Amino acid sequence: MQIGGRPYRTIWEDERRHVVVIDQTKLPFAFETVTLNTSADAARAIKDMIVRGAPLIGATAAWGVALAMRDDPSDAALAYALASLGATRPTAVNLHWALRRMQTVLLPLPPAQRAERARTEALNLCDEDAATCRAIGEQGLPLLHKAAARKSGPLNILTHCNAGWLACVDYGTALAPIYLAHDAGLDVHVWVDETRPRNQGASLTAYELGAHGVKHTVIADNAGGHLMQHGQVDLCIVGSDRTTARGDVANKIGTYLKALAAFDNRVPFYVALPFSTIDWSLGDGVQDIPIEERAASEVTHMTGLDADDHLRAVRIVAPGSQAANPAFDVTPARLVTALITERGVTPATAEGLAALYPQAERI
Amino acid sequence: MQIGGRPYRTIWEDERRHVVVIDQTKLPFAFETVTLNTSADAARAIKDMIVRGAPLIGATAAWGVALAMRDDPSDAALAYALASLGATRPTAVNLHWALRRMQTVLLPLPPAQRAERARTEALNLCDEDAATCRAIGEQGLPLLHKAAARKSGPLNILTHCNAGWLACVDYGTALAPIYLAHDAGLDVHVWVDETRPRNQGASLTAYELGAHGVKHTVIADNAGGHLMQHGQVDLCIVGSDRTTARGDVANKIGTYLKALAAFDNRVPFYVALPFSTIDWSLGDGVQDIPIEERAASEVTHMTGLDADDHLRAVRIVAPGSQAANPAFDVTPARLVTALITERGVTPATAEGLAALYPQAERI
Repeated sequence: MQIGGRPYRTIWEDERRHVVVIDQTKLPFAFETVTLNTSADAARAIKDMIVRGAPLIGATAAWGVALAMRDDPSDAALAYALASLGATRPTAVNLHWALRRMQTVLLPLPPAQRAERARTEALNLCDEDAATCRAIGEQGLPLLHKAAARKSGPLNILTHCNAGWLACVDYGTALAPIYLAHDAGLDVHVWVDETRPRNQGASLTAYELGAHGVKHTVIADNAGGHLMQHGQVDLCIVGSDRTTARGDVANKIGTYLKALAAFDNRVPFYVALPFSTIDWSLGDGVQDIPIEERAASEVTHMTGLDADDHLRAVRIVAPGSQAANPAFDVTPARLVTALITERGVTPATAEGLAALYPQAERI
Repeated sequence: MQIGGRPYRTIWEDERRHVVVIDQTKLPFAFETVTLNTSADAARAIKDMIVRGAPLIGATAAWGVALAMRDDPSDAALAYALASLGATRPTAVNLHWALRRMQTVLLPLPPAQRAERARTEALNLCDEDAATCRAIGEQGLPLLHKAAARKSGPLNILTHCNAGWLACVDYGTALAPIYLAHDAGLDVHVWVDETRPRNQGASLTAYELGAHGVKHTVIADNAGGHLMQHGQVDLCIVGSDRTTARGDVANKIGTYLKALAAFDNRVPFYVALPFSTIDWSLGDGVQDIPIEERAASEVTHMTGLDADDHLRAVRIVAPGSQAANPAFDVTPARLVTALITERGVTPATAEGLAALYPQAERI
C-alpha cells in the first residue's frame, strides 16, 4: 500500500539486510520506523504492539527466528527463540503457526545452513501473506458488489479494530475487499469503530483508509448498534485473531457486541481471515481460546496529539479507580454470516472450513 | 450524597438564593461549582453538559424557569424561557415534563406571584426527585438481595454511563439500589462501562462510587459482552433518558449493545427510571424517539489529566478523518428484564407500566 505516494509493507528487509517495521504505536500522528536487530527486538515489538494484527505478528515472529539464527544457529538458540517469541501474546494463533513453520524448516538442517534458510523462509512467509490477503480481497469483492447492487447510494460497511494492511504484511484481511471495491469504482463508505481501549480504529484504520482515499467516518464503539437499527450499515467485515475448527472467532474485544447487533438487525456479518488464523485443535472458542488481559493503564490513560502537536498521555479514569482490560472476545459461529478466506467464502461451520482445507493441509 | 464528608446535592439554592450546580465537565479531576444567575445560564449549563442526566436536566430546567420569572414574570418571558430551555437537548423527556409542570403552575397566576411560586415549585421538584430516586433504590434493592443469595462472592453488577446521584438531584436511578445494597452490607462490585465518547462512566460513575466506597472496576465499553459470556456479570442496571409507553428505553449510546449481550447470556437487564422519564405519547422507541447528534469533536478529542495535573484535550482520531456522534440509542422492551420505578418493579410492557401509573397521573 502507499504512504505519501511511496509503496510500503509493514515489515521489510532493507538493503543492509536489516529488518524494519513501521512503529504502529506512533501512527497516525507520526510515521516512524523501527529496526529489529535481534530476536529480542522482534519479541519486544510484538509485546509492546509496535507491530500488531494477527498476520503481522506471525510475520514478525518469523523474522525474529531468522534474526536469532543469524546470531546463533544452534538448537538451543532456536528453541529459545521459538519459546520467547511464542510467549509474547496469547490470543493470536498466527504467531504459533509461523513459529511452527520456521521450526519445521530449520530443525532438520545443520546449524550452518539455518541462518540463510531462515531468512528465505521469513521472506517467503511475508510474500505469501501479501498474496493471501490479496486473495481474501478477491474472494470478498463479489459480496460487496452484490450488496451494492441491492441499494442506492454508498455501500456502508462497518469494521472493528484494524484488520487492514497495517495488521498484515500488505492489503489487509477485512479491509482487503474494501480496497479492491474502492479501486474498482464502487462507492464505499466505512464506519470505523474507534476500538477502545487502544483505538486501533480511530488511529490505524482511519489512517490507512484516509491514505488510500476511502470514505470513512469514525464512531464510538457504542454507536454501531444504533446505526444498524436505522439501516445505516449494509454489512460488517472484521478480522480474526484465532478461528476455531467450527468457526468461532476470537477478535478484538467488542467484536461480539457488533455481531449480536448485526444478527438482531439482519445485517450480514463477515469475518475475513487467512488459513493461518485457524486453530484446528479447538472447537468451542468461548470456552477454549485464551484471552489476553492487558495493562489497566490502556484503559485509564489515553494518548493523543495535544494542541502543540506533541503526543501526550492523559488520565481519563477517576483517580483511585481500578480498570480491567481483556483484549479479545469470541464471537460464536452462529452469529457469523460467512467466513471470507483466501480459498473462498464459506459458512462458519466445521463442514464449511473442512471443505476449503483438506486435512493434509492443516498445519 | 457525600463528597469529602460533606453532604451535597447536584443542584441547590444557596443562602443568597443563588442557584448552584456542580460542574460535571470538570469531574473527576476537579470539584467546581457554577452559579446560575439567569435562565440563559441554566440553558447553557444543560446544553454544555455542565449538568447532565435526565432527572437533573429536568431539575435544572425548572430552576431556569424560576430564574426567568425572577427577572421578568410576564407571559412573554415565561413563553420564551419554556421554549429556550426546551430546545437545549432533544432526547431526555424529563426536560419537557419539568417545563410542562412549571407552565401548568405558573401560567394561571398573575405575574406578580410567579417569581416566588416558581422558586417554590423548583425547590419542590428537586425534593421530589430526591425522594423518587430513594424510592427507586428501595424498589430495586430486593432484586439485588435475591441475586446475591443465589451465588457466592461479590454480586457483580454492570452499569453503563452515569445514572447515579450526579445524574439526578440525589441518590441516582440505576445506582440507587446499589448504594442501598452497599449500605446494607451486601458485597457488591460494579463493572463501570467507560461510556465513550464523553466517558461519563470512567469519570462520573467511577468518581461517585469511589467517593461512597463502593467496589468498582472501569472497563472499555467493548468488554461487557466478554464478561457476560464468562459469568462475570450477575445483572445489569442502567438508567433511561426516555421510556415509551410500551417500555422501549432510550439511554446513552451503547446501552442497546449491552442489552443484546445480557439477553444472549441470560443475564438480567434492568432499567431504573422515575415516572418523569416516561413518554406516554410514544410506543415504538426505535422509530419515534429523537436521537441527539452531538459534536464530532467529542469523538475526535479526549480530555484528561496530564502528567503535570493539567486538564488537557488530545486528538485521538487520525487527522483528516471525520467522526459521527449519536448520543443515545434505544433498547427495545423485549431485551429488558424489568423496569424499576419508584412505584415498583414491572415488566417492560404497556400493561406493566399502565398498572403502575393510572391514566389520570400521566402528565
